[in-house]
Formats: sequence, structure tokens, C-alpha cells
Amino acid sequence: MIIVIQCADQVGLVAAISSVVSKQQLNIVSMREYVDQAANLFFMRLEVEEISNTEALETQLRAVLPADVTIHINPTPQKKIVVLVTKEYHCLADILIRNYFNTLGATVQCVIGNYDHLRDVCERFGIPFYHVSHEEKSKDDFERQIMGLIQPHNPDYLVLAKFMRILSPAFVAQYPMRVINIHHSFLPAFIGANPYRKAYERGVKLIGATAHFVSNELDEGPIIAQQIIPVNHSFTVTDMVNAGKEIETSVLAKALKLVFEDRVFVYNNKTVVFE
Amino acid sequence: MIIVIQCADQVGLVAAISSVVSKQQLNIVSMREYVDQAANLFFMRLEVEEISNTEALETQLRAVLPADVTIHINPTPQKKIVVLVTKEYHCLADILIRNYFNTLGATVQCVIGNYDHLRDVCERFGIPFYHVSHEEKSKDDFERQIMGLIQPHNPDYLVLAKFMRILSPAFVAQYPMRVINIHHSFLPAFIGANPYRKAYERGVKLIGATAHFVSNELDEGPIIAQQIIPVNHSFTVTDMVNAGKEIETSVLAKALKLVFEDRVFVYNNKTVVFE
Amino acid sequence: MIIVIQCADQVGLVAAISSVVSKQQLNIVSMREYVDQAANLFFMRLEVEEISNTEALETQLRAVLPADVTIHINPTPQKKIVVLVTKEYHCLADILIRNYFNTLGATVQCVIGNYDHLRDVCERFGIPFYHVSHEEKSKDDFERQIMGLIQPHNPDYLVLAKFMRILSPAFVAQYPMRVINIHHSFLPAFIGANPYRKAYERGVKLIGATAHFVSNELDEGPIIAQQIIPVNHSFTVTDMVNAGKEIETSVLAKALKLVFEDRVFVYNNKTVVFE
Amino acid sequence: MIIVIQCADQVGLVAAISSVVSKQQLNIVSMREYVDQAANLFFMRLEVEEISNTEALETQLRAVLPADVTIHINPTPQKKIVVLVTKEYHCLADILIRNYFNTLGATVQCVIGNYDHLRDVCERFGIPFYHVSHEEKSKDDFERQIMGLIQPHNPDYLVLAKFMRILSPAFVAQYPMRVINIHHSFLPAFIGANPYRKAYERGVKLIGATAHFVSNELDEGPIIAQQIIPVNHSFTVTDMVNAGKEIETSVLAKALKLVFEDRVFVYNNKTVVFE
Repeated sequence: MIIVIQCADQVGLVAAISSVVSKQQLNIVSMREYVDQAANLFFMRLEVEEISNTEALETQLRAVLPADVTIHINPTPQKKIVVLVTKEYHCLADILIRNYFNTLGATVQCVIGNYDHLRDVCERFGIPFYHVSHEEKSKDDFERQIMGLIQPHNPDYLVLAKFMRILSPAFVAQYPMRVINIHHSFLPAFIGANPYRKAYERGVKLIGATAHFVSNELDEGPIIAQQIIPVNHSFTVTDMVNAGKEIETSVLAKALKLVFEDRVFVYNNKTVVFE
Repeated sequence: MIIVIQCADQVGLVAAISSVVSKQQLNIVSMREYVDQAANLFFMRLEVEEISNTEALETQLRAVLPADVTIHINPTPQKKIVVLVTKEYHCLADILIRNYFNTLGATVQCVIGNYDHLRDVCERFGIPFYHVSHEEKSKDDFERQIMGLIQPHNPDYLVLAKFMRILSPAFVAQYPMRVINIHHSFLPAFIGANPYRKAYERGVKLIGATAHFVSNELDEGPIIAQQIIPVNHSFTVTDMVNAGKEIETSVLAKALKLVFEDRVFVYNNKTVVFE
Repeated sequence: MIIVIQCADQVGLVAAISSVVSKQQLNIVSMREYVDQAANLFFMRLEVEEISNTEALETQLRAVLPADVTIHINPTPQKKIVVLVTKEYHCLADILIRNYFNTLGATVQCVIGNYDHLRDVCERFGIPFYHVSHEEKSKDDFERQIMGLIQPHNPDYLVLAKFMRILSPAFVAQYPMRVINIHHSFLPAFIGANPYRKAYERGVKLIGATAHFVSNELDEGPIIAQQIIPVNHSFTVTDMVNAGKEIETSVLAKALKLVFEDRVFVYNNKTVVFE
Repeated sequence: MIIVIQCADQVGLVAAISSVVSKQQLNIVSMREYVDQAANLFFMRLEVEEISNTEALETQLRAVLPADVTIHINPTPQKKIVVLVTKEYHCLADILIRNYFNTLGATVQCVIGNYDHLRDVCERFGIPFYHVSHEEKSKDDFERQIMGLIQPHNPDYLVLAKFMRILSPAFVAQYPMRVINIHHSFLPAFIGANPYRKAYERGVKLIGATAHFVSNELDEGPIIAQQIIPVNHSFTVTDMVNAGKEIETSVLAKALKLVFEDRVFVYNNKTVVFE
């Protein structure tokens, strides 16, 4: 049972919360808390043993916490996600495999691609694949069609697993801080298109990948996780792309795990991550 | 102000502690806690704003905690250390530099070497250096002489900064879990002498260094921190030794910082480290 | 076109080889060489532009090189492998995905499991899966049955992708330095069974994985690649197992790529790896 | 004995060079070569056993190589450097220690600071320290004064060890690709001032440091080495600054070693580094 709490900071919050929890004779399996003193914000993630009456617990917590508190108690037993892709397989395949073996921490409802390339791998795992081309239609129509496919599934998160189209603010606003993207650079380096070519031309000695929530600014949303790998002069752009795929896969998997386990809080375009 | 607490686990400890703290209107700057459920042990590190009456706080904490509790409230304003060395300079020099610029988190009382090689660098920083040769005397005599130099300083910790002699259990028992060693391998690989030669012969692709508390078993004490660096077939033993020095310096510095900031707890030959 | 050469060292080898290559007007795309001076051995990997007459090239090279030379010119266009598994899916699934998308650098001929757990994922990708239980039969019978399934495929390499049985020397001798295993520890630490439990009990701060060729000694064969990830006191054995799976997958993938691209030489129970 | 060669690429260069070397009966200890095919450039670093007649060797090499070739044979027995600093000690102290123990691969001629803060630590090691304030004088005067102190030493390289002033193109032009800077970010992220504050505000999960040659564009010169360390939400700007110091020290040390061992080639604002 996971309890996540976010509210304005004040003296005695930990005492108040832990007192409520201990009065219910709940064992705390793990507790992580963080105070951003400049922003005067308090964040807590509590893992306690299973309980029957979550409503009572929430009521008791609200009684001792500031009015503007956000509390989620084990929000959903298993998150639901929809995955958007273009042509590259590596992130999608990793998600499909974990989904198939029940180690993803979420269930994939369907996959939507603006190309048809990844239909077969989805269908091999019995996951519905929808092809929505972005060609010969307005961006509005494109996004309306995608949204029409997403909404019936009522997903907790959209995962952009190398989806190479930029979504409009209006689209993103439907899933605020619930769209997760993998960007193929060490943000904020190499924002936008062709980061590996830019990295090659700059002659960097490390390349990176960044998993982040999508906001209205391109590649400017809150960062969840980042990784890098060393490169050297002998790497062509293609070598960098290939090396990069390994960490893109790895860092997206890590970010999804963190999000699905309710370890990530968002505020001020940043994240608190209780790893 | 740092408060560290270690005791048997029971329901309500966090509530009890945080309640004491909040009644004093102390702001919690950071709180880290961990429960080893198998061992039924509770560990907490609290950082709170400065207070005047630490005795009252300790009394109040003891009143709500199990009888066998260990509490340290900001044990010493600045730790005192004695450093033991042989011939290699890298770890010692790093400590001397940090000590000189007041960023070590401790003050070096003196340095003792079983060779005289590192006298000059110590004296350049005004740190007393004592040469105690291990030659032509019994181990007992050797250690008695060293202990005679250490005791007047009443150090909090002894740091073995590439001290290449094995200390007797009787010696170590004088400073239980207060002797910190840097071992030049990724323990438990390559215990004992010549780890780089063994690593070379085994053809490993990574070499490591381990900072640990010294116990009676050679290289078997509780591990505080470990690091590795990649090597390859082109590394000679000497190349490995040289590459290893960089991480030995780095990992010992990291371990000392963790220990001096009261972030390390020891139990069951393991450590809890609140990084 | 890849040319790999291994022979006793002598003055002038690079000149002799590169002279043969340049007389054919072949552009050298990349050249890597290494001399183990203690062992008096010379290793070279040359990548040149495509040529028609590999036999003539080999004859000319042999004419200028020591008699005991080993030369392979692009030995096979695409390596063939057979994968052995037990119950864990992560390494196998990664191989199946890369095989399906033609990025493995080899083709999976079939998968053999001593449990039936991974049949379905193989069949989803159209890869033959054979279940050979180790139960109720002698080790000899077990291995004879497996070998009977392997031999018709005439594979270049056997990949033990979390195959939890120890193969006999007689079996391994059929594929000398052609059986690749992933061991779930940072060898030589934690040889043998249950490395994560041992790592947990020792309280290490990093755990690792090692890809190596299988020799007759358990976990003692030549190491191809190693990786580590940080852990801390809060990791249970299960947490370590799960974290370890990520690097097991990653390090095996890396080792296979190195081997399939003819970047790995073996001698004296060690490897030369031209990354 | 190190031989470095850079010239236009053509078929047969390796054969020509290695033939010259082997005719002299020189054993090649190590050879690294790289061809940038797009730029049609050839780079080689050769390490051979000591020889008496370097002039003859150079003449013979020039006879077989393109006219525009750059050849350096063990250019100087030991490089000479001048170090420029401001207030921060960590990079300077590391250089002073290595210099003192003869492991720097260069000798520090003197240190120049635009503040007087680091005089004492230099003098403790007997290294001349000159204080040249940038205040109350024009940039021209400031740089003229510094240059006046540098030139008598005729250094091979200038090392900016946390020197927080931007040098003019005219100044840098005196030492083209011979001024080495440590920038406290993972370039090209966070160019310019206050990179740690920018990193904090962006909420990155890794911070970095970059050692590079100084060109006319701020923080845009050829990159020699880069490193990163993980950070998280709990890091204040000060915490990032402190964590960053560790990798600044480490990456500058690594870059200097590479440069001093003649492992770094520069072209097209990038480096070839034979590690």
C-alpha cells in the first residue's frame, strides 16, 4: 500500500502523519520525505502494510494536514498505459516484453503508430496496434484521431516510445504530467531534432538520453531520469544512434518503473524522485 | 544539528520521534529512516535546525524510545582523525588538501607512517608526521608504539590511507568500527595482497576500490563505499595500479565524508548509509 | 570485410600485413592491434573495404606471417547461435527481439530450455523451442539429448542466457571458446550459486554481471564484458535480483555484439577485446 | 618514444609508416590509428622502443608521407605548463600534488591568480604564484600583464584550473589549441556562467564537467574529456557545486594526462583521443 502526500510545508507534518499511521497499528515499510524549503513544499511517499479501510485513513490524514493537500492512496492497483510510436522498435519492444511477463508495473492497452512498421511485433504479443498516419491531414485531425483511440482506454499515462511527432499543447493538456517521453539526448543539450548528429558535430565524449514528462515547451518538461554512455572520435552518427538506443531503452524503462511505483512528484517543472 | 538513532523496531517510532521534535518547534531539514525487518532494527538520521538544549531533547527522545536505543546528537562539532600511511601518497595528499582548506569535515591530528616517505608532504601542511618502522621489532611493539602516538589525540577515527600492514585484533578493538580502510579491489573480489596483479591475471574488465571499517577478519569489515573503473587487455599491472589510485582516492574521500556527516550506521557486518 | 590475425609477435608484422593489404589497393577502414609482450603474442583486427578474392589475400598474408598464424577473413557472413535457457526471460527476450529486427549480428537457430516456461515467447517469434528436462535422467543423458538438438544447426556459438545448469567438460569441449555465459555477479566475486544472496549478506554497495566464455572451471572462463550498478542497504535480495537482471541483459547483449563482430580474441584464459 | 602523425589519408599509409619503423628494427609497443573518411584525414600515435637517431627517423617518415604531414617525435621530454586560477582550490591542488610527486607528466612553471587566495598553497610546494588582479584595469592591460609573466617560461600548455575570466581571442591566439580549460557543466549544456544554478533550475538528474581546448567562442572549443555524476531533487545549488568539484578535478586530471602523453589530436573543432 503506497501513500503519497504533497502539501505546503509546516512544522509537525511528519509527526502528524506518522501518528495517524501508527494509531492504525500500520507498520511503515518505508518512508521517504522531502521539503523544498524555498518553495515551502512537503513531499512524502509512505509504504505501509496492506489495510482494509483506505477511506478512513485518508479522512484521518486530511484532518491533520493543510487544506490544499494532495493525497493518493494506492491510486490504482495497476496503471494503464497507451504507447505511441513511429518506426524505431527498441523502446516499444522492451515495454511489450515487460508487459507480457507482468513486470512492467502497468498494462499496455494499445499501441498507436504514425507508421505501420511496428504492427507485427505488437500483434505477436496480442496488443492492439492502430496506424494513424500524419500524412495528408492537418495536425488537428491527426491528433483528434489519436485521441479518439486513446480515450476509450482511459489510460493513466501515455508513453511516447520514440514517437517522432510534436504534440500540440491542446493535446498534452488532456493528460497533464501524464505524458512521458524519451528524448535521445542529455537534456538540455541538443534540444529538438537530430541530437546525435549535433552531438557528433560538437565532438562530445558522452551521449545521453532523458525521460521526461511532456509540457508545452519542446523538450522542456520535468526530467524523470537521465543516463549517459561514453563515445569517442571513432563513432559515426550511426554508431551514436545505435549506442544511444541502448540507453534510451534503459532510461525509459527506469522512468516508467519510478512513475508506476508512485515515486515521482512534479512541481515547478522539476521532479522529486524517491528512488 | 544531526540526530542519529538506532534501536529495535516497533510500531510508532517515527511518530514518537517526530512528535518530540515538533513539540520543540524544530524544523526538520531532512529525515532518513530505514527498517531492517529481518533484523528488527530501526535507523534514523535527522537534520534539524540548531537548538540550544540538546540534553532536554535527548531526555525526551529516550522517554519515548526503547531502552536499548543509541542516540547521538551532533556527537562532536568536528571529528578528529589520525591517518596511517605507508609509501603511497595519493589518498593522504587528498586528505591533507581537504584538511588544509577546511572541507574534510574533520581535522587531521597527525600522520603516522611505517616508512618515512610522506614526511615532507605532511610537514609542508604543518601536520605532525611520525615515522614508526615495523622493521626489527615485534608486531606488538610496533602497534604499541603507534598506539602511544595516537592516544594523546583521542581521535574519533583512524584512517588507513594505504597503510599496508595488517593490524592485530587487539589493536582494532581499541577503535571498534572507528578504523576506516581503503582496499584496492572491489571486495569481496581479490581479498588480501596484490589485488591488481590478481585482477590482471584474471583478465577482469573492471577494477574497483572499497572503503570499509576494519574488523578482525582481513578485508571482511562492513563496506561503506565502492567504486569501479573500466580496464581492458592493454592495461599492464602498473596501468591498473595507476588507474586504481584515482578511484582509491575518490572512494576513500566519499566514505570519509559519509562517516564524518554521521550518515553511516553499522550492524551485522553491514552498513546503512543515508547518502 | 573483417580480417582477424593472431600469431607470435615479431618485428615488422604490421608493416608486412599492411603492405599486403595496400598492394591490393584495399582501404583500411579501421585497424586495431595489440601485442602481449610477456606472452609474445600479436593480435590484429582489420576492417577493409569489400574484396572479391579472399583466398588470394589469405595466401599472401600467410606468406609474410609466422607459420603458426591464425587468420580468419570474415569467417561467416552471419553467425548462427543456439540459446540455452532455464526459466528467466530477460536475456532471452532481448536476444529474440534483436534477432527479429535483424540487429543481433547472428541468427537464432533454436532455443533449448530445461524448463518449458519460455516456449511461448519463442513461438511468438517463430523460433523453435525444445524442452529438455534435466530431471529423472543422468547428466550424460541430459547433455546428449541437448547436443543432439544442437548439432544439426551447426551453430557458431552457444549462448547460455540464464541457463542454470553446469555443463560437463566433455560437453563444453565440443564448442571450445564458443559457449558464452552470463554470470550474475562481478566475477571473481561470488562464484557459483546465489550470488545476489551472497552480495546481500556481504553488504556490497555495487552488484555486477559478467559475460564470459565457458571453460572447464565453474565461472572461471575468459571474461568478455562486465558491468555494475549501485545498490544500497535498502535493497532486499529480490531487489538485487531485479536490478541485476537489467545489467545481465545489457552486458550479455554487449558481449554478443563484440563476439559476433569478431572483436574478441582469447588466450591464456583472458580476452583481447577491440571495442 | 612517442611518434604522432597527422596527414591527408591515402592508401598504404600504415604500410609505409610501419615499414620505415620495422626497417629500423624498432619494436612497436603500441599503435593507434584513425581515419576520418569524411574529412580524409589520417591520425596515428605510435609508441616504439627508445631510439638514438630521431632525425633520421623523421626524414625517412617524411619521405613516404604526404607533403602536408605533421610529425612530432617525442616533442619534449617533459611538458611545461603555467596554471591560471581564480579562487577555487580543488583543480589547482590536484595539479600541485601530482607535480610534487612527479606524476603529472608535466612540470608546473608558475601559477597566476586574479585573486591572491591560492598563493599560500602554491608557496607550500615552492611553486611561484603571481597575483594579477583584473580590477581597475582594462582587459588588455590585464592580459598583457599575465602574458608578460607567462612568456619567460615558454610553456607548452596553459591550464585554466577554474580561472573564471574569459580570455580574449588575441590572447588565446598566442597559444592555439594549447590552452586547456575545465568547464563546470556537461557541454554543450549550460554554456557560460552559473551552470550549476541552471542545472538546478532545470532539474537535471546528472551534472557534468568538460575539459576542452579554448577557442575564440565561449565554451565552444574542442572537447577532450567529459564526466558526469548523478544528482537528485535533494541537491541544493551548493550541493551541486560541491559534487561538481569532484568531477571537475577528476576530468581535468584525465584530460591533462591524455594531452601530456600525446594522445590528443585536434581538427575541425573536435578531438581524436587515443586512450
